[in-house]
Amino acid sequence: MEKKLSKWGFNNGDLKEKSLFSIRSVLKMLMENLKEDDDNRSKIHLGRGDPSAIPCFRTSSAAEDAIYSAVKSAKFNGYAPAVGLYSTRRSIAEYLSHDLPHQLSPDDIFLAPGANQAIEVVMSVLARPGANILLSRPGYPFYEARAACSNLEVCHFDLLPEKGWEVDLESVEALVDDNTIAIVIINPGNPCGNVFTSEHLQEIVETAKKLGILVIADEVYSHLCFGNNPFVSMGVYGSITPMLTLGSISKRWIVPGWRLGWIAMIDPSGVLKKSGIAECLQDYLEYSANPATIVQGAVPHLLEKTSKDFFSNINNILKEAVEAFYTKVQEIPCLTCPYKPEGAMCVMIKLNLSFLEGINDDMQFCTKLAHEESVIILPGMIVGLKNWLRVTFAMEPAILEEGLERIKAFCLRHTISS
Amino acid sequence: MEKKLSKWGFNNGDLKEKSLFSIRSVLKMLMENLKEDDDNRSKIHLGRGDPSAIPCFRTSSAAEDAIYSAVKSAKFNGYAPAVGLYSTRRSIAEYLSHDLPHQLSPDDIFLAPGANQAIEVVMSVLARPGANILLSRPGYPFYEARAACSNLEVCHFDLLPEKGWEVDLESVEALVDDNTIAIVIINPGNPCGNVFTSEHLQEIVETAKKLGILVIADEVYSHLCFGNNPFVSMGVYGSITPMLTLGSISKRWIVPGWRLGWIAMIDPSGVLKKSGIAECLQDYLEYSANPATIVQGAVPHLLEKTSKDFFSNINNILKEAVEAFYTKVQEIPCLTCPYKPEGAMCVMIKLNLSFLEGINDDMQFCTKLAHEESVIILPGMIVGLKNWLRVTFAMEPAILEEGLERIKAFCLRHTISS
Ligand SMILES: Cc1ncc(COP(=O)(O)O)c(C=O)c1O
Ligand SMILES: Cc1ncc(COP(=O)(O)O)c(C=O)c1O
Repeated sequence: MEKKLSKWGFNNGDLKEKSLFSIRSVLKMLMENLKEDDDNRSKIHLGRGDPSAIPCFRTSSAAEDAIYSAVKSAKFNGYAPAVGLYSTRRSIAEYLSHDLPHQLSPDDIFLAPGANQAIEVVMSVLARPGANILLSRPGYPFYEARAACSNLEVCHFDLLPEKGWEVDLESVEALVDDNTIAIVIINPGNPCGNVFTSEHLQEIVETAKKLGILVIADEVYSHLCFGNNPFVSMGVYGSITPMLTLGSISKRWIVPGWRLGWIAMIDPSGVLKKSGIAECLQDYLEYSANPATIVQGAVPHLLEKTSKDFFSNINNILKEAVEAFYTKVQEIPCLTCPYKPEGAMCVMIKLNLSFLEGINDDMQFCTKLAHEESVIILPGMIVGLKNWLRVTFAMEPAILEEGLERIKAFCLRHTISS
Repeated sequence: MEKKLSKWGFNNGDLKEKSLFSIRSVLKMLMENLKEDDDNRSKIHLGRGDPSAIPCFRTSSAAEDAIYSAVKSAKFNGYAPAVGLYSTRRSIAEYLSHDLPHQLSPDDIFLAPGANQAIEVVMSVLARPGANILLSRPGYPFYEARAACSNLEVCHFDLLPEKGWEVDLESVEALVDDNTIAIVIINPGNPCGNVFTSEHLQEIVETAKKLGILVIADEVYSHLCFGNNPFVSMGVYGSITPMLTLGSISKRWIVPGWRLGWIAMIDPSGVLKKSGIAECLQDYLEYSANPATIVQGAVPHLLEKTSKDFFSNINNILKEAVEAFYTKVQEIPCLTCPYKPEGAMCVMIKLNLSFLEGINDDMQFCTKLAHEESVIILPGMIVGLKNWLRVTFAMEPAILEEGLERIKAFCLRHTISS
């Protein structure tokens, strides 16, 4: 056995070789770097888009009640259909249709145990020998990882910091070849916190139509918008070219651990339906994970009964946090924030290494910061921008300020003495 | 776009070409075949191992309470580590250790959103070019499907109906070659309802050791035993050769919709640990679905607080159902049941087609039965035995009897007039 095992040799070399690290594994590594602080300072975690443990970000009582009723009814203990319960798909279709000029049908909705798995499903269904997909830089690295798992080649286009992180459409046109199957657009944006104007969304869709590629719109942060640009669903332009939108209850309801997301087919002209993609999604889901049926059972109540106040309260906290963040970050010489976020939960800041001594890159910055200041932030290289930093502002504003205070102290301590 | 889509052409041909159908999709097809009955007879669903909708099989109040507390605490709304929450892994390690001669550690446990996904993870981690895996015939077809998804070749060994569905160990020895990596053993057995003696389990483990292959023991139906043979975990023989056992709360707590299962590394000698398999499982889970954190949070309470009465009540109902089933099935000339089940939820019965007119195989039998009698059972071909039938006995005994009454009427109606 031992001989055989060593002959087989277990290792998942592929992802590691491609230098793909999950956000979760990098944060874990950084956490292991924390020092028990002498003055007992608590750690400040600005590394991930999951504020669920923070009291002011507690999910809505409607969401909690929805689970209680689902369990109590004993109707949601059994296996669900692969694509999800019909009643759940219907309620999501209705929910999404509020943002659209046309009505979605329950058959347009496919449930997955979180948007991450929606990404898995879509990447798998799109993959075929030689195909490539366009992903943004910076972006959400789960796409790169799942593309690698499906042997789908990745081409990166840039988001432009000086243009509010808009898509560099010229670079998109230059990248597309005969084997390009789709482009992924994340809006509201992770990791930049940008919110696209409807004009820009339309431009993207027109470009995709011209190039003959499928649009995949990741709207996991939908409605978490608190700046000038309101949330507009890419689906508004579904009559120009068909698309898939991805969503989830993780962010808006702040229950990422409940693991429920979806793929919506935005296909008013019926082009996608004819392509057989719906059957492929269904077939894939037949053999992959499905969201817990009790959570599926809770979704209609959660979608219908959550009060407007819950949503506006969350957006107000995020807005306040961003203001605090933006003011504070200006005080730190080696950091530049080119854009004040208007949505989602994260922001990108540029690291000016020439100001610093003994710090060679973003990874080292984050490792030392964790060790010296018990503050966790994500190195930009993980999301595609080396020597930038990704900071989550979904935090109690006071703690966020304290975190930035410590980052400032850290930066000053490591500033080159000239 | 349309041109491009049709050029790409979406279809998941692979699984269909290999004639792999999921149980769920076949049952769906049979359900669509049901006729609105003139005398308004209700449909009787003996097709799947999911009795959760039947009042007498309602899950334990401890399980429901566990979810309420998990939600109420607001501690389980966030993302969990890829391998699962430490406290959940610890409680599962303790739970499983009751059946073992050695103590498992939380690090030996890897959570997945159901045992199906545990199967996915294990198949993916074991797969490598040229490798093959031994699966039983009959068996649980999700293994074949996931093996196909991972390009893992499948070799089938037989279970012997005349020997209480024991493993044909001679055929196992004949099948193994240098590329055989593992053997999967399901005990208590699905689809046969058999429970292996500890002697037979030891024989299997000794054989695997001799052949140098890994044992994967699917114990999803653990403790659902109500005959002569008690449940013995394969892990009892873990000191002979290392193994992975798979489990889940789906069956024993009758909550398959909650989607929580696990992989346990039974490795008292540390051979598996050295092979790097733990890192591979972790890496795979990093990019695949994880169980809902609220369910993870509920597991310790559910495992510790469910009353013995709940379990013995379920086993008593199953035993009573089996008795009713076994008596009734003897009255049907064209059916033979070679083994009275002692565990799990299903039984295999042999179809003697020479007694029947106008029915050419098991699939046709089930399709016509659904249409004429509103009774759903699964054609044996789906689980690897053509012209057998898989019947679920996890049903209220009275309804099971009614179901068999209808099957009998159906068979008599289609008996060859000689
Ligand atoms: C852009 C983006 N897409 C998808 C996801 C995954 O969300 P879920 O929790 O629904 O899997 C995230 C999570 O952070 C995200 O930032
Ligand atoms: C033998 C066997 N293994 C695994 C499973 C999957 O169980 P789960 O609901 O935990 O995914 C089943 C379900 O029927 C089964 O019969």
